[in-house]
Amino acid sequence: MRIDSVDFFYARMPEVTLEADGSQDALLVRVRAGEAEGWGECEASPLTSIAAFVTPRSHGVCRPVADSVLGERLDGPADIARIARLVARNSMDLLQAPHTFSGIEIALWDLLGRVREEPVWRLLGTTQAHAKTPYASVLFGDSPEQTLARGRDAVARGFRAVKFGWGPFGMGDVATDADHLHAAREAIGDDRELMVDAGQVWQRDVEAAAARIPALTEVRALWLEEPFGASEYDAYADLAAIAARAGSAGRGSVRLAGGEGAHEEAMARNLMRHGGIGFVQIDTGRVGGIGPSARIAGDAGERGITYVNHTFTSHLALSASLQPFAGVRDAVICEYPAEPKQLAVDITRTHLTLDADGRLQIPDAPGLGLEVDLEALSPYLRTVGITIDGETLYSSPQPGSTVLSS
Amino acid sequence: MRIDSVDFFYARMPEVTLEADGSQDALLVRVRAGEAEGWGECEASPLTSIAAFVTPRSHGVCRPVADSVLGERLDGPADIARIARLVARNSMDLLQAPHTFSGIEIALWDLLGRVREEPVWRLLGTTQAHAKTPYASVLFGDSPEQTLARGRDAVARGFRAVKFGWGPFGMGDVATDADHLHAAREAIGDDRELMVDAGQVWQRDVEAAAARIPALTEVRALWLEEPFGASEYDAYADLAAIAARAGSAGRGSVRLAGGEGAHEEAMARNLMRHGGIGFVQIDTGRVGGIGPSARIAGDAGERGITYVNHTFTSHLALSASLQPFAGVRDAVICEYPAEPKQLAVDITRTHLTLDADGRLQIPDAPGLGLEVDLEALSPYLRTVGITIDGETLYSSPQPGSTVLSS
Repeated sequence: MRIDSVDFFYARMPEVTLEADGSQDALLVRVRAGEAEGWGECEASPLTSIAAFVTPRSHGVCRPVADSVLGERLDGPADIARIARLVARNSMDLLQAPHTFSGIEIALWDLLGRVREEPVWRLLGTTQAHAKTPYASVLFGDSPEQTLARGRDAVARGFRAVKFGWGPFGMGDVATDADHLHAAREAIGDDRELMVDAGQVWQRDVEAAAARIPALTEVRALWLEEPFGASEYDAYADLAAIAARAGSAGRGSVRLAGGEGAHEEAMARNLMRHGGIGFVQIDTGRVGGIGPSARIAGDAGERGITYVNHTFTSHLALSASLQPFAGVRDAVICEYPAEPKQLAVDITRTHLTLDADGRLQIPDAPGLGLEVDLEALSPYLRTVGITIDGETLYSSPQPGSTVLSS
Repeated sequence: MRIDSVDFFYARMPEVTLEADGSQDALLVRVRAGEAEGWGECEASPLTSIAAFVTPRSHGVCRPVADSVLGERLDGPADIARIARLVARNSMDLLQAPHTFSGIEIALWDLLGRVREEPVWRLLGTTQAHAKTPYASVLFGDSPEQTLARGRDAVARGFRAVKFGWGPFGMGDVATDADHLHAAREAIGDDRELMVDAGQVWQRDVEAAAARIPALTEVRALWLEEPFGASEYDAYADLAAIAARAGSAGRGSVRLAGGEGAHEEAMARNLMRHGGIGFVQIDTGRVGGIGPSARIAGDAGERGITYVNHTFTSHLALSASLQPFAGVRDAVICEYPAEPKQLAVDITRTHLTLDADGRLQIPDAPGLGLEVDLEALSPYLRTVGITIDGETLYSSPQPGSTVLSS
């Protein structure tokens, strides 16, 4: 096969707020090769990512992503890896390129899986897919009482693990943060896992982060996520050492988690090698797709670090994010978009739901195992037009175009 | 003052080739605040960088760069740092943002310098600007003979240091690379500095890179630049150790150089801390502008690493790239765009030229010390239009608009 077309579909809620909720818009990617097609999703700014696909070349290694994808042969996984290397080389100086390519790469795997009638995880060499235990991501409330209520709500929806994040956490005083943490633990009881996401709030201020370690240790938080900027490896390492010492007093220690900001495999490797993290969290829709995510999952295992997906959008993105570590039995926990906006729900005809034990089975169906529902999406679709000197460089595909079945 | 407007000017040569020549297009940024204006340049894909400025928000930390800049107060350097932190926070998940903001940040410094009638380096706290010794960047030839000819040409143009890079280097066999290196040294004689740029050709293959160390040591190369991907710190460190051992046999050792791919301060810090480099090369038009570059220059000094600018475009970009290390007496070498395309020449009315000793004086004039020549640029200017649902989101400013003098 040859890659005949790559089409982007930009969907957006009527109102997009300043919440830390990544499901308010989406950039879907459809790749066609002959009679086959596949779908992926970029976890990225839609207009900027489309621009990176079509932008005029600036020089030999600042070329549009399209140059390395359209017309390329696609006969197996090795071709996907080859195309990824082309993009990395030809778009070396185009910063947005990995975010754009991530959705394309996912669509290439989906397409290949549909053609071969195999789930993507099997194409990756995985012989058995292990069910995961999803955690609910909820925002800290404005008050500890609100945090308590949100935690109880997540429990009522059947989650066995709950992550609290963002909101006021880390921005006020240490005692208020402790109140929120105790409210969170009270809400979910003693038997569920509790995780905390600081959303890079301390940038590289180890002291500010360390001041929260005692309360995090007291409430037995499994991990503290993104205390610092994505590349602040030394701050991560210093805090990890402080957290380990706090734990050795007999109450178990808080591990650090991070990696969602990685936009290439090397960044994730560096955080694992130099940051002292216990959990590496990879967004398949940002890091370059499924191939690099699977390699990171392998590396993590060798280092004794637990791989976790980062997913805050649709179930298409969720399925893509589960494939790379479907075969890792010990990596039990997965992120699950607990309260996505309606557009993220409408992206796929079917959904990945929790079973009676609060667990998630990974689809054993061709490709990513889900069908995109363009018709349901059409109210959300935005039409993008880009011109240079009055000539059309890009124009969104018609929403009503026929979806091929593979 | 408040920031009233940010305008982008996208200039492009009639033909853009696949050469590794970054001067084939340019993205200029004009910032206006009241009656004052300043200019900067992004070293980045123009269309993609414009899109990152205007793109609709996706969520609270995936916002367009414009949201953190327009309408902000600008009364001193602290405001520039504050705006940079806003961008880093509000556009955390917008990968292209640092490339877009770099040109804006440079324009903010230029504007402030013009208002205060001080060169930017003085605003940075530098009391004396030290002249630099520019090196010419030339491409390796297709044959060692061509490499020899290119080196002789650079010598004839008065350069006291010459860097050879890209072309066939690193792609063929080790003996051919050695022939090129000996031709390069022969061309420039024994008294000039020789540098080599591998353009990330070995990705993370330490063995392939190490095979070139003996020849690099024989020809007394001052540095080997970008042997690996920008974030491959461990590969850098391993190669640095190999190079140091090769040098200890009494012939001086080759140091590693890198950093042009850094799009935030932390990436440069990581390469210095974990990569074993001897030279850190920063592109002010990518790393976030002049502020982070100056902090990296300070950090480098404390670590015994030499700061060098990375500049391959206009003299506006060159002046911006010299400000952060103007005061570092020991950082003598600077990159100088030796054979830029005509559009890069036409960007400014005046230019930074080598003196009789082959040295470059840093302008002691307000801001960046150069005037942008929009009239000369007008043949190169491209008009960009971006619409969403038929409504104009972005439209290039008219090329003929009046340039205010400060």
